[in-house]
Amino acid sequence: MSLKNLLPYAMKEKPCDAVFTNAEFANLYTMEIERADVAVKDGIIVGIGEGYEAAEYIDCSDGLLVPGFIEGHMHVESTMMTPRAFAAAAVPHGTSTVMADPHEIANTCGMEGVRFMKRESEGLPLDIFYGAPSCVPASCFETPFEEITAEGIAELLADGTCTHLGEMMNFPGVYLGDDEVWKKLEVSKDTVITGHAPGVSGAQLSGYLLGGVTSDHECSTRKEALEKLRRGMHLMIRQGAAARNLKDLAPLLAEDPRLCVRCLAVSDDITPAFMRERGHMNGCVRELIECGVPPLAALRTTTLTPAEYFRLYDRGAIAPGKRADLALVDSLENCRVLCVWKGGKLVAQDGKILENLAPAAVSELPGIHKTVATPTPDELKIKLGPDDKYINVIGVAPRQFTTETLTLEPTVEGGCACADPSRRLAKMAVVEKNRGTGRLALGFLQNFPIARGAVASSVAHDAHNYTCAGMDDLSMVTALRELARMHGGVVVADGDKVLASLELPAGGLMSLLGADELLEKLAEIRAAAESIGCPGTEAMMQLSFMSLSVIPKLKLTDQGYCDITAGGTQPLTLKDLPKK
Amino acid sequence: MSLKNLLPYAMKEKPCDAVFTNAEFANLYTMEIERADVAVKDGIIVGIGEGYEAAEYIDCSDGLLVPGFIEGHMHVESTMMTPRAFAAAAVPHGTSTVMADPHEIANTCGMEGVRFMKRESEGLPLDIFYGAPSCVPASCFETPFEEITAEGIAELLADGTCTHLGEMMNFPGVYLGDDEVWKKLEVSKDTVITGHAPGVSGAQLSGYLLGGVTSDHECSTRKEALEKLRRGMHLMIRQGAAARNLKDLAPLLAEDPRLCVRCLAVSDDITPAFMRERGHMNGCVRELIECGVPPLAALRTTTLTPAEYFRLYDRGAIAPGKRADLALVDSLENCRVLCVWKGGKLVAQDGKILENLAPAAVSELPGIHKTVATPTPDELKIKLGPDDKYINVIGVAPRQFTTETLTLEPTVEGGCACADPSRRLAKMAVVEKNRGTGRLALGFLQNFPIARGAVASSVAHDAHNYTCAGMDDLSMVTALRELARMHGGVVVADGDKVLASLELPAGGLMSLLGADELLEKLAEIRAAAESIGCPGTEAMMQLSFMSLSVIPKLKLTDQGYCDITAGGTQPLTLKDLPKK
Repeated sequence: MSLKNLLPYAMKEKPCDAVFTNAEFANLYTMEIERADVAVKDGIIVGIGEGYEAAEYIDCSDGLLVPGFIEGHMHVESTMMTPRAFAAAAVPHGTSTVMADPHEIANTCGMEGVRFMKRESEGLPLDIFYGAPSCVPASCFETPFEEITAEGIAELLADGTCTHLGEMMNFPGVYLGDDEVWKKLEVSKDTVITGHAPGVSGAQLSGYLLGGVTSDHECSTRKEALEKLRRGMHLMIRQGAAARNLKDLAPLLAEDPRLCVRCLAVSDDITPAFMRERGHMNGCVRELIECGVPPLAALRTTTLTPAEYFRLYDRGAIAPGKRADLALVDSLENCRVLCVWKGGKLVAQDGKILENLAPAAVSELPGIHKTVATPTPDELKIKLGPDDKYINVIGVAPRQFTTETLTLEPTVEGGCACADPSRRLAKMAVVEKNRGTGRLALGFLQNFPIARGAVASSVAHDAHNYTCAGMDDLSMVTALRELARMHGGVVVADGDKVLASLELPAGGLMSLLGADELLEKLAEIRAAAESIGCPGTEAMMQLSFMSLSVIPKLKLTDQGYCDITAGGTQPLTLKDLPKK
Repeated sequence: MSLKNLLPYAMKEKPCDAVFTNAEFANLYTMEIERADVAVKDGIIVGIGEGYEAAEYIDCSDGLLVPGFIEGHMHVESTMMTPRAFAAAAVPHGTSTVMADPHEIANTCGMEGVRFMKRESEGLPLDIFYGAPSCVPASCFETPFEEITAEGIAELLADGTCTHLGEMMNFPGVYLGDDEVWKKLEVSKDTVITGHAPGVSGAQLSGYLLGGVTSDHECSTRKEALEKLRRGMHLMIRQGAAARNLKDLAPLLAEDPRLCVRCLAVSDDITPAFMRERGHMNGCVRELIECGVPPLAALRTTTLTPAEYFRLYDRGAIAPGKRADLALVDSLENCRVLCVWKGGKLVAQDGKILENLAPAAVSELPGIHKTVATPTPDELKIKLGPDDKYINVIGVAPRQFTTETLTLEPTVEGGCACADPSRRLAKMAVVEKNRGTGRLALGFLQNFPIARGAVASSVAHDAHNYTCAGMDDLSMVTALRELARMHGGVVVADGDKVLASLELPAGGLMSLLGADELLEKLAEIRAAAESIGCPGTEAMMQLSFMSLSVIPKLKLTDQGYCDITAGGTQPLTLKDLPKK
């Protein structure tokens, strides 16, 4: 867009739309607090300094003016909110731009799911730029609605649905030279290629870098982060509801604040509760400062640095020609957001969004609204043959997404291996829903926190098929049936009763509720789950990772047990104990 | 280019081409000196660390390994060398990439001149990226071979001749909203738009920024530089043969080295003598450090920062996946370059280029090789009418390109106004050559340093028509005739004798000599000029700016006198003294 028509306003010949007066503002170019008026016309900053006339004068003496925050990496679907509802929750925290990887919905609804996210993001007081999902399915052990191929990625980039390549999680595919992975890198080479490479180091990191990947958000130690910074990657410091690396990585920035030009704060996965508790990117700024990072360096990681990294030349700082995406904060240390302007328009005040962003009904999506046959009690039975002496069991540890592979003797009832609360042994079922086959896989969980009944969810990374853990088959049948009835959601059941349920009709992942209602609903789910001995949110999140084949070790997908470190599928029952 | 085929080398499965061992290298990402081996295959850095095997091991214990230097803004034509000869002179100083604005040859030879520069730059051990000339002609008072229009710029960008927009010198055209200027900005909006805005500040600077201009190399004071940095421009700190701003601007960086991420060192105009004396970008690093800039911050302004600014993602640092453009320097403080590698190949050692880069004969160019009619003695006469009481005279001050407008009584001889050594009044002539019309314009210079004879040159910014200053008509006729015979060059004449001459056949601007021969030739010119009381190089450079209409005040182009501050053309003779 040519800004030529704004010249008379920049040149003080005509009155602007608004002037932010008495403004102290954060200048991320020179890393200083400046005091000057900021003049805005048609959503663009047209001048900084004295002498601008305007239709409206906005007094900023209460706080510090900062550029709208930029979220460098997240999955909107993980908030269980649609882009509209997410915007309503995030914008009051000063967020004005989000780089999102829609790979959850890409698993459940394919290309059309990605386009759905883009469509749902139009007209919001928040710019959401989508990364083309690079790893759908996450592995050959998972069943997405459809594979996102290199051609598909090229299409999403070409038609403007996506602007960059979403996290390249298949890091071995990169450094081992997998053809399809490199095709994806090749079609994305003129965009920003974002990474995901936990623990990748040395020669493997070099190989990963040859692929053109330029960032990583999986660093959990200083050592790992420093190596990646040294080799030229942008470091995404993740502070999400699930993984929290900020406290471990912030000391790098505290000790050498110059690194703020190479670091972005990101969320990855966040929940409405997490946002309500500590904000969004403003929370990252606050927490970085608490860790000793100089305030302006902390601010840069959520504004100018992500703008530079993602080549968003029209934002990230307060300067003539940039978008008037602004937030007024009480201070950088508190980072309480008083007012938010998007393209010069006031869009949030005192923590409240001003526009009505109640999510509307969503359009029909492929992979959803199919009639998925859920298992009968009989189909859930695991009948043992004469040689089935042992069962493989997913060993769960508190608050971990990695698991162990346990081989145990089954608890047998009527010739079937069954759940056993006394042994903390739950049954797990996965029902393929993305393609509507209803294919059923069964397994066991050791130490998954549930005392009786069942919990089920259609949020189950990465393929997000219907996933259920329970202590009896009837409860599981009830939970899965309810899930199918809702075409996706979260269910707590006990016997033939549904204790609580939440519909997630948008892609089987997102509710049509706003953040407040969603939080209420999630509180009901939590209470119901607790009533069956399952510590709500945390357990549900843990369940949602029990199908993710790319995190070791034993996982259950609709294709059965798999262990990516052991090279593939694993049996449910065994004759003998495995040799050590 | 996909780097997939380099994976076996990165992964240490196959021996690389070369490993730089015992290397201390400058890491511009983390701003530290690292010690590690650097492995290279097919011109690309494939790994950093231990354990790489290679066909060749290069011991780096003598110095510090740095990324090849990147020149952020210069005009190759100003060196009077072709790209080949310039490469031979610059590469031994560690330069590996140059961002060049070919607007000199664009004036003399049009679009074809720009393409000529690009062609002549192919296959060199130096990457020269050209900016599309944004201001040809510099003003309507100058006569280039052809105008470079917005369409022409779009064509140069589309066909790969140019990668960015060359310095937008018409800053009033930007902030006053000139249609053609904004068309040029519009067609360049997806590239880097470089600037040139001396003294532009406040609201005018805001207007200039709305045009999308993102840098400036014309800052001469800290105050000006700081304002432009604050408003989001990249600051190009210029240290050239003509304009030297480094000492004035370096304190900004010395006091806040964080600004090194927003500052580039550039040359603008440099001569072979200047390069021989202090190097190229390595000279900038040395001089910045002398001014108190921390060594790595100084280095960043000539490596990673220009790479980032110009979106050259494949260079600017030493890291896997980057081009193996490297220099070994004795220290950052001295910045003496011991060895230079381009794409992993050793291309210079101990100050000598290893490849034979003797300039070849150049192809025919439009605007050159025309038979230009030069004036006869009679045509050079300035006959006075009965009312012609006064003459306008360009008032020259030592080492300044700005001039004054003087109105003086003429020295009259045979009814003609003539040069007068006793009054330090020289005659000036400009002969249009780019279009071959031979159109002649005459004027006077006060205080131009010449005692007798004449000097003439086809280097005369920006249109580069034939320009001559002399104390008698015969010498001027001789000088201009020799210039036309050579189809461009530099001439010193006395009476009917050519005392010295230098041919500049490439575009009328560049010699076909290498740096050493060119320096010898220029020494001859200097000696000859001194013999007629003209202090060589400096006077010639001053003469070359006496036609540049966009620098105030009075200038002489082939269209006659003009004064851009007084609104246009000016008469040679006057009836009365102008009213004050």
